[in-house]
Amino acid sequence: MPLTLTSLGCASALPTRDTYFTAHVLNIRGRLFLLDCGEGTQLRLRQLGISMGSIEHVFITHLHGDHVFGLLGMLSTMHMLNRKHPLYIHAPAGLEKLIAFYFAFLGEREPSFTIIHEKVETDGLSLILETDTADVYAFPLNHSIPAYGYLFREKPVRKSYPRAVAYCTDTAPRPEIPVWIKGVDLLFHEATFLEQDTVAAAKYLHSTARQAAQTALSAGAGQLILGHFSSRYKETPAFLAEAREIFPNTELSTEGRTFSVPRSFIPTEAE
Amino acid sequence: MPLTLTSLGCASALPTRDTYFTAHVLNIRGRLFLLDCGEGTQLRLRQLGISMGSIEHVFITHLHGDHVFGLLGMLSTMHMLNRKHPLYIHAPAGLEKLIAFYFAFLGEREPSFTIIHEKVETDGLSLILETDTADVYAFPLNHSIPAYGYLFREKPVRKSYPRAVAYCTDTAPRPEIPVWIKGVDLLFHEATFLEQDTVAAAKYLHSTARQAAQTALSAGAGQLILGHFSSRYKETPAFLAEAREIFPNTELSTEGRTFSVPRSFIPTEAE
Repeated sequence: MPLTLTSLGCASALPTRDTYFTAHVLNIRGRLFLLDCGEGTQLRLRQLGISMGSIEHVFITHLHGDHVFGLLGMLSTMHMLNRKHPLYIHAPAGLEKLIAFYFAFLGEREPSFTIIHEKVETDGLSLILETDTADVYAFPLNHSIPAYGYLFREKPVRKSYPRAVAYCTDTAPRPEIPVWIKGVDLLFHEATFLEQDTVAAAKYLHSTARQAAQTALSAGAGQLILGHFSSRYKETPAFLAEAREIFPNTELSTEGRTFSVPRSFIPTEAE
Repeated sequence: MPLTLTSLGCASALPTRDTYFTAHVLNIRGRLFLLDCGEGTQLRLRQLGISMGSIEHVFITHLHGDHVFGLLGMLSTMHMLNRKHPLYIHAPAGLEKLIAFYFAFLGEREPSFTIIHEKVETDGLSLILETDTADVYAFPLNHSIPAYGYLFREKPVRKSYPRAVAYCTDTAPRPEIPVWIKGVDLLFHEATFLEQDTVAAAKYLHSTARQAAQTALSAGAGQLILGHFSSRYKETPAFLAEAREIFPNTELSTEGRTFSVPRSFIPTEAE
């Protein structure tokens, strides 16, 4: 009964020679959720052998190009593959312009499937979706445009504890975030900058690796994975070192890595 | 004094695990021209170490998504890199919708550079641009929407013959094409299908490898390079074999390959 988070990329607004835009695929017991969709996401799905047809829900954190430009190509490809089942795109207000542009591009043709924009807008932790394997919550982040983090709580199964994953990008620190995501097993958090560039991080409403680690610590998270690294840094080990000073169980969410949250079994009376 | 054509990708509308959308960079004595801009093009430029800042002219053959969706991300990145010099996008009518969408996305911000859409519309071979190193012509192709091929004729330099490159995609065969591009040193031509799928090629207004080779032969081209392969074929050697039966000097324009047209020196009287 897997719960895994696979990284399609860890670049921020400017990709590098070896990175792709930050996006992830969350697999909760066979249900795939796509988290953000920057340019090239459909190529990354194909390269990693992840079936586009298995994705029913896309969650967009915010409407900066590096998180959404891949939607156009992905919708086109789904149409060309004659997709029939609907696609739900959970995203802040404003995504309609992109979807309208996609339809304008199609001209007189109708896509083979229904595209539903579920508008995300909330001041606090808010249930936005129930599926058979997970409840999904949105919560506001702290960025230069409206941005939302997502919290996935696995539906309980017999004899094991439910698992939870939180996805936070792009954002500067915000005191409520660790409260909203308290106890998550796996936290993806942007670390666009290192602490040496705290001023830039504050200016652009991003986080440093240290701040991401602080959020993970305050939330009592199980594991922290970092991504969305600025291209100004040539190497990423510094992010790891900086975060691990505060939160030892940190990894880097680099291209193609998959992180698992194993099941924890509830002890029976005999145990 | 190089004249080279570098392939960024050879996929057609549906990319595969190992391919990227068809696009090329033509370098004529230091001037870079980008030919088409499907999703991921900016990533490919970065991966191949090709400077985006050195590109002043983009030539779009037609407005199918796999040839244009990369413009949004590329324009965004150019703006973030604080580009100052203008970008000319030579493209059929309709590109304005994409540029308008890009501006809508930017909101109140102005891009740091001017974006000029030079509309391409012609019934025959037509000079559309003169630069210091080349004259550029457009000519109509034979596709399901308005599509244009491009012909680049090097400006003469002392003591050597000018060189010429033609770029033909997407297109079914058309008798005038070999006339318009007569004598080109290097011809890029789409070969979406193999001859066994001639019916599909005709239906979707594409070419087979054999047809591309026939065009090259009729045009008296120097070298033919093929690309824009349909994802239905798992291997590409069949394209080569099929084309070489008609036109031996054929290569495949696969990811990252660069093709050169060496200078030919004009013999002096003493010779």
